[in-house]
Amino acid sequence: MDIKPIRTPPRKRKRARNPNPEVRQRLLDAAGGLIREEGFPKLRVEEVAERAGLSVGTFYLYFEGKQDLFANLLIEHTKELRDALHRAYRTSGTVAERLSSGLDAFLDFVWENQKGFLYFRDAGTVQTTIGRLSTWAFQILSQELKPLLVEAMESNEMRREDAELSAQAILGQFFHIAGYWLENKDRYSREEIKRFLTRLSSVGLVPRPLESRTHPPRER
Amino acid sequence: MDIKPIRTPPRKRKRARNPNPEVRQRLLDAAGGLIREEGFPKLRVEEVAERAGLSVGTFYLYFEGKQDLFANLLIEHTKELRDALHRAYRTSGTVAERLSSGLDAFLDFVWENQKGFLYFRDAGTVQTTIGRLSTWAFQILSQELKPLLVEAMESNEMRREDAELSAQAILGQFFHIAGYWLENKDRYSREEIKRFLTRLSSVGLVPRPLESRTHPPRER
Repeated sequence: MDIKPIRTPPRKRKRARNPNPEVRQRLLDAAGGLIREEGFPKLRVEEVAERAGLSVGTFYLYFEGKQDLFANLLIEHTKELRDALHRAYRTSGTVAERLSSGLDAFLDFVWENQKGFLYFRDAGTVQTTIGRLSTWAFQILSQELKPLLVEAMESNEMRREDAELSAQAILGQFFHIAGYWLENKDRYSREEIKRFLTRLSSVGLVPRPLESRTHPPRER
Repeated sequence: MDIKPIRTPPRKRKRARNPNPEVRQRLLDAAGGLIREEGFPKLRVEEVAERAGLSVGTFYLYFEGKQDLFANLLIEHTKELRDALHRAYRTSGTVAERLSSGLDAFLDFVWENQKGFLYFRDAGTVQTTIGRLSTWAFQILSQELKPLLVEAMESNEMRREDAELSAQAILGQFFHIAGYWLENKDRYSREEIKRFLTRLSSVGLVPRPLESRTHPPRER
């Protein structure tokens, strides 16, 4: 998939004829490391090439420039988060347990990519050839979450709702609170945020049927 | 309050010595009308001046340019939404009823300002002299919502939670779902969105105490 930021006029540069996925990955890894250290706005293409042990010319064989690098990094990170959610959601516990594992995976991801996450929140709204990049990212993640919600609704572990809206609501809430957390790290620990979001989604979208709440938990 | 987008170097233009609030409001209203019709990206300063019946020179006595106009419009709209929430939250019903009135006010605001709302979502992350503009906007709105949540927690209409996090979670969810709704207007009606968000916040953050749910509602 070749997703580009929209700009006019597009820059015409020579691209790699036989791109080497390992070289591309080295550039993305170098950029990822630098962003973790200093954030995206200060990042320079020269630095990325240097950290990757490659020339600036090679960088431009793989990416059109900084905005193109950003779009590709965002796509990589979205897929990384999707895979982490996938692993969490495909385990064997109850829906509540699997949602909780997914929340852990999400918070780990946010914590490890703090500067990148905040930059995504602020700049992910860029228009690309596949539309607004963050709309695409939410769509990818919602596709991962939705089957779990459908399963929960069918087994009555969850109130019946529009599954797409529910997935978007959970993700929208998680992203907003994660950004708020990173801006207020002195006020809230990871554990407080985790407990808050767990109560929110377990009392909100995943209420056990009322009758079963008033009895002791059933044996599994 | 004089809030400016951060840019270097700042443009030096003559500003109005004795700014006339009515002239400023005419320019903001003209810009608001044009944005409702065609969105912000296409907006030209010349058009705003023409619609307001003023000269481009006058425009620049009040705003430094398009970005400054955007920041001021966002501030005006945030205050407008805050005032609408204020009126809804200060009525005399139960917390659930007042939250529902606030949700109506929010959805009306989003519907009347569709293009402006989506543009805010995508560009409100701009850095200004008071920090990220959308962080400021969420802060203003959360200050309006928080006292209602505190009241509900004290009267046991709501589970006890960190009030600031709860307000941020509700707002983050409402903003995300509102943006999703505007992008999928063919799939969801205003009523469907309203019902979904009402269930989400009333079952989520405002559960009646469990005991009282299993009995018939008490008389008021």
